[in-house]
Amino acid sequence: MPTTATAAKNAKGAGKAAAYTELLARLRAGATLGAAGSVLSWDQETRMPPKAAEHRAEQLSMIARLVHERMTDPALGELIEKCEADASLTGDPVESANLREIRRDYDRARKLPTELVSEMSETNSRAMEAWKAARKKSDFSMFLPWLEKQVALNLRKAECYGAPAGGELYDALMEDYEPGMTAKQVDAVFTPLRAALAPMIEQVAGARKKPDNAVNTVKAPLDRQIEFNKLIAARVGYDFDAGELAVSTHPFSSSIGIGDVRMTTRYAEDHIPEAVSTTLHESGHSLYEQGLPREERFGQPLAEAVSLGIHESQSRLWENQVGRSPEFWTWALPEANRIFDGAFKKFTPDDVSAAMNAVKPWFIRVESDEATYNLHIMLRFDFERALIRGDMKPKDLPGAWNERMKKDLGLDVPDDARGCLQDVHWSMGSIGYFPTYTLGTLYAAQMWETIRKAIPDLDQRQAKGDFAPLLAWLRENVHAHGRRFTAPELCERLTGNPLSHKPFMSYMEAKLAPIYGL
Amino acid sequence: MPTTATAAKNAKGAGKAAAYTELLARLRAGATLGAAGSVLSWDQETRMPPKAAEHRAEQLSMIARLVHERMTDPALGELIEKCEADASLTGDPVESANLREIRRDYDRARKLPTELVSEMSETNSRAMEAWKAARKKSDFSMFLPWLEKQVALNLRKAECYGAPAGGELYDALMEDYEPGMTAKQVDAVFTPLRAALAPMIEQVAGARKKPDNAVNTVKAPLDRQIEFNKLIAARVGYDFDAGELAVSTHPFSSSIGIGDVRMTTRYAEDHIPEAVSTTLHESGHSLYEQGLPREERFGQPLAEAVSLGIHESQSRLWENQVGRSPEFWTWALPEANRIFDGAFKKFTPDDVSAAMNAVKPWFIRVESDEATYNLHIMLRFDFERALIRGDMKPKDLPGAWNERMKKDLGLDVPDDARGCLQDVHWSMGSIGYFPTYTLGTLYAAQMWETIRKAIPDLDQRQAKGDFAPLLAWLRENVHAHGRRFTAPELCERLTGNPLSHKPFMSYMEAKLAPIYGL
Repeated sequence: MPTTATAAKNAKGAGKAAAYTELLARLRAGATLGAAGSVLSWDQETRMPPKAAEHRAEQLSMIARLVHERMTDPALGELIEKCEADASLTGDPVESANLREIRRDYDRARKLPTELVSEMSETNSRAMEAWKAARKKSDFSMFLPWLEKQVALNLRKAECYGAPAGGELYDALMEDYEPGMTAKQVDAVFTPLRAALAPMIEQVAGARKKPDNAVNTVKAPLDRQIEFNKLIAARVGYDFDAGELAVSTHPFSSSIGIGDVRMTTRYAEDHIPEAVSTTLHESGHSLYEQGLPREERFGQPLAEAVSLGIHESQSRLWENQVGRSPEFWTWALPEANRIFDGAFKKFTPDDVSAAMNAVKPWFIRVESDEATYNLHIMLRFDFERALIRGDMKPKDLPGAWNERMKKDLGLDVPDDARGCLQDVHWSMGSIGYFPTYTLGTLYAAQMWETIRKAIPDLDQRQAKGDFAPLLAWLRENVHAHGRRFTAPELCERLTGNPLSHKPFMSYMEAKLAPIYGL
Repeated sequence: MPTTATAAKNAKGAGKAAAYTELLARLRAGATLGAAGSVLSWDQETRMPPKAAEHRAEQLSMIARLVHERMTDPALGELIEKCEADASLTGDPVESANLREIRRDYDRARKLPTELVSEMSETNSRAMEAWKAARKKSDFSMFLPWLEKQVALNLRKAECYGAPAGGELYDALMEDYEPGMTAKQVDAVFTPLRAALAPMIEQVAGARKKPDNAVNTVKAPLDRQIEFNKLIAARVGYDFDAGELAVSTHPFSSSIGIGDVRMTTRYAEDHIPEAVSTTLHESGHSLYEQGLPREERFGQPLAEAVSLGIHESQSRLWENQVGRSPEFWTWALPEANRIFDGAFKKFTPDDVSAAMNAVKPWFIRVESDEATYNLHIMLRFDFERALIRGDMKPKDLPGAWNERMKKDLGLDVPDDARGCLQDVHWSMGSIGYFPTYTLGTLYAAQMWETIRKAIPDLDQRQAKGDFAPLLAWLRENVHAHGRRFTAPELCERLTGNPLSHKPFMSYMEAKLAPIYGL
């Protein structure tokens, strides 16, 4: 069992720093209990029978409480202080980063009363069940009391954390998902992005040339599709001995514990390339988690993801930059024809790529294209910020939603199931999470520029189904560091520039031009 | 959340007995944490990827430790004492039984140091992985160090508990599975059973008439078999909204928490009736768990099964008394023909029943018939008793096993995978568990005699697929009581007699006579 021994081995000057060894062992224990909670959540999402929901909420709440109690134990604070006084640690660039983040997490956790943590956990399980039922019936009124409760709980949480100087309460919530990023900073990136996206979407809408959607009408049985998607996930580097690719209505990745990073995808009888997108997206998340140094540092910040934005950059990069490219399909199409008995013979890699890059405003965020997707995010960002500011009431959400969808995307939302009830996030109490999706999209595009320069034969390698150089670059430059650098630091370090919408726009324009004859 | 409120409602004289309310709330919390551990175990058995095994052991050990700490908290002892001094509780026949069993569990748990509990839990996860690998390669030497460790840990556990007056250390282990039963008492039932079984098995072996095995050669695809088995489980009363029927190599039932009792079965392309046996067996376990008053009393002895012997009586009764009978197949055969496109048209219910009751000595316990099965149990009982007494060394197990199989069943064991490595139990640290299988077989036969008198039209009802009266009888007479009565008390209460091998022998002789022309 690699507990104290390994922790000690990883702490430079471990002989002196018994406090550090003890600190890391405690973090590992807390994270191990957290891993148990992750198994419960995975089970809840993938198999749990309906009548178990109530008791599952109680189980998860209990584990959340126990983890929180451990992570806020004053003895932990004393150990951190001792370590902060130890020059052998603070002088080490790696361990000092670990310590900096341990301090951050501890101080932050101490601000939340255990009662609140336990109540939030229990509310999340229940609100999620209520949301499922409400969405099924497209009945917002069934979800409204839970949304109100989640907003109220988030307000309490934000007040416990406190707004940063010159900032707003929403910033305190976003800090859970994208540390150091404020609503103002998000605005500063989203505003020019919107300004650049709108004319591009308009231009595409008016284009005479359109991609042919025929590739999305090819049908294939489920078992063959599973085979195809598993082949792809394994090929890009996902380790099936340390995970699985299951099926769920809402695909997700779950980083459970050491050697255990699972993911789900979803299949339709047709739309075979879209299932591949989903699988590559979740593979991107899982490759990041499988690439973190968990064996050595489980429970430590250096074995954790930087932020959800950086996490999403990994999923987007594999889904979009890789998976929607003609190069990827140069390798994947022959495989598809082998598995699907030649069903894709009449299509070229360019055909598939073009169909997968069609821009088409749509009700559902997760089914939207790379361009309009960001408008869905901006809507949610604005609304959740307004809910926390008190500028919007939960009961007014459906009306505001439908109005904004009309304005931004020109769509008449047919019902709340396809409108404001479509996403699970708010039911899970996650407010401040949505902007990280578009941040991830932008991070991915910006990294991709760098990667193309770093791996000159990237296209040729991809066309042969050789994704090893790409994964190696991500492992070395992103995954291996854990939380050593913050997201903005990492971005500058990798790309030489702060985050901008420009690389994303250049990438989109370059690929849409031939497809739409722009 | 039905915590203190429900607990109080269930405690008569709750106004006075605040201590009882508090006691029950604490038991519920401990059991809820235990339920989290059960989810982890279920996941480990059904889905967990191989590289997760090490960390899963750590997670389970941590939960076992936390549960044990709660269940041995001296504050719990003080609450029990207060309750024992409360006449409103001790005068109540139901609550006093609850309190009696709470006291028993507490005193017993207090005898085990937390370190030992944690070590046992971690060893169980790991030894099970080692056993899986050893069995796969049929290499006993890979498992030997783990078996030695499990015997040593069981010895430590038995010494902590202490042998009962006039008894042996093995009794202390058996107490975990069959409370109140000693090795001597088991011997007193097993000895006449063996004496009666041996000539019957010999007589059958020499019989000229034999059942036709043709029904076990009909083949059907997996999805149809799943449909058939789910139909049967639902028909006998298993609630699929509070569970699932999954697939695993070694079928089992897992009672996870409130509204969550799951089970697995296994399918072969042929041997369709055997899969039904397995499904009915696990359904019997699950029906018992689903029939316990968990909603009201989760975590209390009155919502727990009496013993493994009584548990096994429920599984055996549905598997054997019901599922191998011509009456059951009078209902089930037309359903099979509907689902399997008439594949069983040439068979009568008597044909299926006869094939399912064939007596044939075999290497594998779980594939053995109702008669010879008990010889497998007696072998294991004798060996594990000898291991604890020190009369046998773990390293001598394979030789002793093979010799005894030859002597008892006339079989030459081809390899350890089909010999002493076939069962998971010892790898899981369960020593003292095996005898409960045969005890369950005997309890089932003895209950069945009573039930046949209590429900005069039982055969006709079964032939129509109406299992409601049988389930209602079991619910009322067995399930609803939880641990109110001990196993011997329950047996006497239900059947008017102490446990005996005779009802089982009468039942076997009656059904084998026409099949073998005895």
